[in-house]
Amino acid sequence: MSLNLQTHTEHFTNPLYLESGRILEPYDITYETYGRLNENKSNVVVVCHALTGSHHAAGLYEGESKPGWWDGLIGPGKAIDTDNYFVICSNVLGSCFGSTGPMSPQHPHHEPYRYKFPVISIKDMVKAQRILFDRLDIHRVHAIIGGSMGGMQALQFAIHYPNFANKIIAMATTHATQPWAIAFNKVAQESILNDPDFKQGYYDPALLKEQGLSGMAVGRMAGHISFLSPESMREKFAREYKLTDGLYELFGKFQVESYLEYNGYNFTKWFDPLSYLYITKAINIYDLSRGFDSLSEALKRITSQLYLISFKNDLLFKNTEMQEIAQELEKIGNKNYKYIDIDSNYGHDSFLVELEKFEHNVKDALNG
Amino acid sequence: MSLNLQTHTEHFTNPLYLESGRILEPYDITYETYGRLNENKSNVVVVCHALTGSHHAAGLYEGESKPGWWDGLIGPGKAIDTDNYFVICSNVLGSCFGSTGPMSPQHPHHEPYRYKFPVISIKDMVKAQRILFDRLDIHRVHAIIGGSMGGMQALQFAIHYPNFANKIIAMATTHATQPWAIAFNKVAQESILNDPDFKQGYYDPALLKEQGLSGMAVGRMAGHISFLSPESMREKFAREYKLTDGLYELFGKFQVESYLEYNGYNFTKWFDPLSYLYITKAINIYDLSRGFDSLSEALKRITSQLYLISFKNDLLFKNTEMQEIAQELEKIGNKNYKYIDIDSNYGHDSFLVELEKFEHNVKDALNG
Repeated sequence: MSLNLQTHTEHFTNPLYLESGRILEPYDITYETYGRLNENKSNVVVVCHALTGSHHAAGLYEGESKPGWWDGLIGPGKAIDTDNYFVICSNVLGSCFGSTGPMSPQHPHHEPYRYKFPVISIKDMVKAQRILFDRLDIHRVHAIIGGSMGGMQALQFAIHYPNFANKIIAMATTHATQPWAIAFNKVAQESILNDPDFKQGYYDPALLKEQGLSGMAVGRMAGHISFLSPESMREKFAREYKLTDGLYELFGKFQVESYLEYNGYNFTKWFDPLSYLYITKAINIYDLSRGFDSLSEALKRITSQLYLISFKNDLLFKNTEMQEIAQELEKIGNKNYKYIDIDSNYGHDSFLVELEKFEHNVKDALNG
Repeated sequence: MSLNLQTHTEHFTNPLYLESGRILEPYDITYETYGRLNENKSNVVVVCHALTGSHHAAGLYEGESKPGWWDGLIGPGKAIDTDNYFVICSNVLGSCFGSTGPMSPQHPHHEPYRYKFPVISIKDMVKAQRILFDRLDIHRVHAIIGGSMGGMQALQFAIHYPNFANKIIAMATTHATQPWAIAFNKVAQESILNDPDFKQGYYDPALLKEQGLSGMAVGRMAGHISFLSPESMREKFAREYKLTDGLYELFGKFQVESYLEYNGYNFTKWFDPLSYLYITKAINIYDLSRGFDSLSEALKRITSQLYLISFKNDLLFKNTEMQEIAQELEKIGNKNYKYIDIDSNYGHDSFLVELEKFEHNVKDALNG
């Protein structure tokens, strides 16, 4: 069967009460679906995206040259098999691909929120998705899966909506963001804030789209370091060097430098800097134990079957952080989980690029 | 006995032929000495500094609150015992603490070189030091020791001046800079280059000293990530958080964020951005095998007793890179080396802060 890619936006007028105490009202959630919902609605798989991802997880739009970010995993006959499952992926609150974020018009004005947009947490992102599923008349799903910030959402679903998903598959993620990750986000945030073109949040989006925001480009370069590992970088780039014909010898370039430049500057053409600030903030303040006496008290709420998949050389969300979840589960006597540590040198990006290393685990988890 | 701290600057009019083919003429080298030179000049220990270090490795100047960067290691009764050894540490070419660098006046004009300063390599830094020692009538030294870029200099000395030092102690360094380190330097370089106050190298140094260069601050934050490790950051900062009374909730701060801010912005008050560009370039292009058929051909020139000290959790210059040197030495039948891997979680900065873990190794190496 075909992928049956569809894109929709739902509009909500009912106020969303945020974790910060603020209220978001109204708001939109944009989402994609793949495959077909079965009659008893028992075949829904929710996919959650990472920091700069979007609802466009699979397939190609007309005119697109690059498919959705998890296209290798989602589709007919693939690990998340759209011949069997009805897959939903929504753009998170605070992002810039259709769901309400800092550059959305602030009701009842038509001016964008900018800094008046409230702080969003991972819990808020999940709450908004849960309300979307209500609207779609979906009250229980087969599975929720995500990597990195997507894994945070999956775990937050497991704790705050324990009766919602049969299975939770959380990859390359953690129970609480640690300082190494916060530090990389800090570099990006400072770099954006210091860029004079950012104009303290009052930038002209049209101008930015044209020329990009060099501050965000530099911040994103730092991000790209955090997604890899010393080993994967060495394998990928070695010390390959090319002389450029710039005015000063200072500007000859190592291949790793070209890679960072390309990815950094290209990024500013498709992502909004305020969304970057808000979503990195959400990642920084993410802590499953917030609102509970401890992490284990939080984990006690889980009833779904839980799959924890880490990558050996992930420096951003270390496999030891996933092991800490497993240890807490052991302590509270939860045997309904499986922890899988994937042997990989690639670093954090593994969950996006080394599909062949874990797609069978995803398949087993979904079908087992 | 006292430390006997002395600071001097030597002026050289003889042209320095650089690795790039360019000529530097004239140039100054600023250096410090500690302890006393013995009669037969057999007690000299050369200390080499890292990227942002200086010749001020030990002791306190009047009015200073913080001693030199390796004060815990150098002094009477310390591992590098100034009661026995005459210690010399010079500021590298390209730096900004007295030795000739990009902001030095270009002879015969009085304008600073800025981008007209030639690219400097680690080999050039070492060559200039060797000429300084000639001037001081020192033709052989007991030992050369350094960490990070200081270790690169020590190894470069060992290969290019094989009859100069009895012992070489290289710590937290590598035989060739790998992409992970180059990538962090890239973030800093781009961040400096994009800062409008940098004015493409034509900044006003007085103004910069007053207000700092935010681009360099952000770049330095990235640097401070690379000096630590996920583990040491977690130990140091955990998720300690303080609310600030800024206008937007977005600006509450994790302790790790305050740490990066403080170290980043403070740094711009005492270091020159062009020096940062030139020295990171020197680090990036560092490769002991350049000019030889292979690394092992380069290492064959070594006659000094060699001590290689790495730190288990150093991500910037991984212990595996030091092990590669050891393996090559084994292959060519050099048994006159000792490889020591220090058990540490602290990351690259270990060589500056965890002295208690390796000072006995340094002592043994010097006195053994």
